[in-house]
Amino acid sequence: MKEQAYDPEEKKIRNIKLILAYDGGKYHGFQRQNNAISVQNVLEKKLAIVFGGEIKLAASGRTDAGVHAYGQVVNFLTEGTIPIDRVVRAINSHLPADIVVRSAEEVALDFSARHCAKDKVYIYKIQQGEVLDPFKRQYAWYIRKELDVDKMNKAMRYIVGTYDFSAFRAVGSAPMHPVRTIFEANCKLQGDTIEFLFWGNGFLYHMVRNLVGTLVNVGKGKTTLEGFKVILEGKDRKKAGMTAPAQGLYLKEVNY
Amino acid sequence: MKEQAYDPEEKKIRNIKLILAYDGGKYHGFQRQNNAISVQNVLEKKLAIVFGGEIKLAASGRTDAGVHAYGQVVNFLTEGTIPIDRVVRAINSHLPADIVVRSAEEVALDFSARHCAKDKVYIYKIQQGEVLDPFKRQYAWYIRKELDVDKMNKAMRYIVGTYDFSAFRAVGSAPMHPVRTIFEANCKLQGDTIEFLFWGNGFLYHMVRNLVGTLVNVGKGKTTLEGFKVILEGKDRKKAGMTAPAQGLYLKEVNY
Repeated sequence: MKEQAYDPEEKKIRNIKLILAYDGGKYHGFQRQNNAISVQNVLEKKLAIVFGGEIKLAASGRTDAGVHAYGQVVNFLTEGTIPIDRVVRAINSHLPADIVVRSAEEVALDFSARHCAKDKVYIYKIQQGEVLDPFKRQYAWYIRKELDVDKMNKAMRYIVGTYDFSAFRAVGSAPMHPVRTIFEANCKLQGDTIEFLFWGNGFLYHMVRNLVGTLVNVGKGKTTLEGFKVILEGKDRKKAGMTAPAQGLYLKEVNY
Repeated sequence: MKEQAYDPEEKKIRNIKLILAYDGGKYHGFQRQNNAISVQNVLEKKLAIVFGGEIKLAASGRTDAGVHAYGQVVNFLTEGTIPIDRVVRAINSHLPADIVVRSAEEVALDFSARHCAKDKVYIYKIQQGEVLDPFKRQYAWYIRKELDVDKMNKAMRYIVGTYDFSAFRAVGSAPMHPVRTIFEANCKLQGDTIEFLFWGNGFLYHMVRNLVGTLVNVGKGKTTLEGFKVILEGKDRKKAGMTAPAQGLYLKEVNY
């Protein structure tokens, strides 16, 4: 869109911000793909129907294949004239039921869902119990062995603050500055499900899933609290736990 | 199995009772089918692996295509020798994740999951709200318009007791005596979801889903409380509401 010359007065360019929820189970991630179906592919196609013309959207960030969202944020420029209060229903009437627009808002032309994002909240769910709950199989990681929630909470205190999170960054991921600030991190048992919360100013690729995989080792007693701290400080991905499976992860909200 | 001659002393015939949970979304109902995949088809095949020989099971009752269960009960006779305390894990290791054995028990040879069932509890879920929750789309009926829960509860009091439920029986279903006793019926709002509970000594084909469809008309103000009573007393299926969709219905438990 950057190359496109426009006169806002004449063409009435609008910048639309959407908050989305989606079940990522069937999609090859959020980001547009050429040979696979992504959330972005589906959404851009439907937005083109509602707004007219080709729509290219920007998102707060990618989510991986199988990862869910309650509060992904996107924006796009359009000359479409549909009133803003009709946008949610209009788009949802075209979307499949696993992608839902929760709200729509007209924002300043310089708003970018990607570049203006200040912080994000991720949730990760683990189902506990003697048997897997078939209604949660697509929405949580099932672990039979009872995890020590109290001990995992204590480990999570070590990551609150500003640290180099290289130990929890995906091997071979794009070289980005590995320092991030975590404002809040905790876990609690609700019914048979442990819900982990991570609130931070940004997350490295696979960082939440690698943290959860390592915390599970703490919860199982395989890794001590001191051991967890050593892993964080060691900045070596090979020392941390497995990458927790995608279906337990949710992008909960993005703040601007 | 009736024709089969056996000497329990010699062959050690065992009668195994299982409690099952399943996500019915992918199955053409519970009952064995020749040209479609049912829960029974899958389960009998996996039971044969664990217990050996051909397994023919009996269930407390069928559930329709797309209907779920937390507590379906089945039983079967077998000469298999696997210890009862290993049965749950053994079967679950073979089953797909949308069918789960919750418990296994060895019971008297004359126990029949079908004929000994005394009463059943069904749950029906409706999701309310401005937009559909993509994580509930396969597990509830989505209705945007806010339903009057208090009024639906009042209507549900009319069905507690022993009545002829012909008004809520599927058109063209097998001729069965249409009188059933409902011990308890109520609905409550939990978060954004209305949960209906029906506890009775038996249910006619489509009875719960037809009741919910009619109660929704009460909740929307289309049918009055008096009108609901007239529908029940009129015993005419054509006067009642639509059949609520399958994905909101759960066989919660079966009591013996």
